[in-house]
Amino acid sequence: MADETDGQSAAAAITQLLDEAECLRLIATGGVGRIGYTGRFGPTILPVNYVLYEQTIVFRTGLHSPMGEDLRTGIADAEYKVAFEVDEIIPASREGWSILIQGSAHHVDSDNELAEVRQSGVQTWPGGEKDLFIRIVPDRITGRRIRRAAPSADG
Amino acid sequence: MADETDGQSAAAAITQLLDEAECLRLIATGGVGRIGYTGRFGPTILPVNYVLYEQTIVFRTGLHSPMGEDLRTGIADAEYKVAFEVDEIIPASREGWSILIQGSAHHVDSDNELAEVRQSGVQTWPGGEKDLFIRIVPDRITGRRIRRAAPSADG
Repeated sequence: MADETDGQSAAAAITQLLDEAECLRLIATGGVGRIGYTGRFGPTILPVNYVLYEQTIVFRTGLHSPMGEDLRTGIADAEYKVAFEVDEIIPASREGWSILIQGSAHHVDSDNELAEVRQSGVQTWPGGEKDLFIRIVPDRITGRRIRRAAPSADG
Repeated sequence: MADETDGQSAAAAITQLLDEAECLRLIATGGVGRIGYTGRFGPTILPVNYVLYEQTIVFRTGLHSPMGEDLRTGIADAEYKVAFEVDEIIPASREGWSILIQGSAHHVDSDNELAEVRQSGVQTWPGGEKDLFIRIVPDRITGRRIRRAAPSADG
């Protein structure tokens, strides 16, 4: 894509680690993120439409979808660990940020919690029956930003 | 983000599975993808700049980076299974596609293979010492596209 633009990479890249508050601020608007887990065919990454609701990631999937089934341990109160990633990348300038949330994938099964989580307003883009709400409770939130220094100061 | 635009979701979403040839065509230009694996802190997803080289995904990382170390099994010829995801998503219309590659993360260690893989021209955006080339050899390639039908036919 932009791999031939060698002149551009002459501008030094600065990688900055983001603190948890900044990470949460960047993902607060919701949108599209990617969930990572070990499924029936091994490590898996799929994009989902999410909202940040009370410091947890909420998204919907089908009750009997491969993802819904892969993320159910079958043991009460036992939850799989998953990754959730959100990023914003600008190919032209090779800058951007990415946030990684690591935590447990909680299936919202009780009526009380379902009523609560429905308030998050999260929708699904593909449509169809997406009656399973999954909530990722973060154990660890990390992020980094890459930006480029101008090759020389100009103001 | 676009969660209040309920009128938009009235246009039916059509989810189409993509065959392997179409998946490879979509990712052939290279760019940014996301690698998923189980690291020291559990499931992990990180964006990397990649090229498609002879039907394998090639990217670079630091020889002693957390990712470089997490992906090394320490056993000759044993390689971790990883996921690699590439997508293109248009938030305004809630359309897009995503490709998922599942396969082994091969560390390019021999001089011969290193010379070959360097021809792929893959660069890293963050800069710094990124002397480890990792090559993902696909076992399984799947993809899907979501598009929207117009609510009514208009020509």
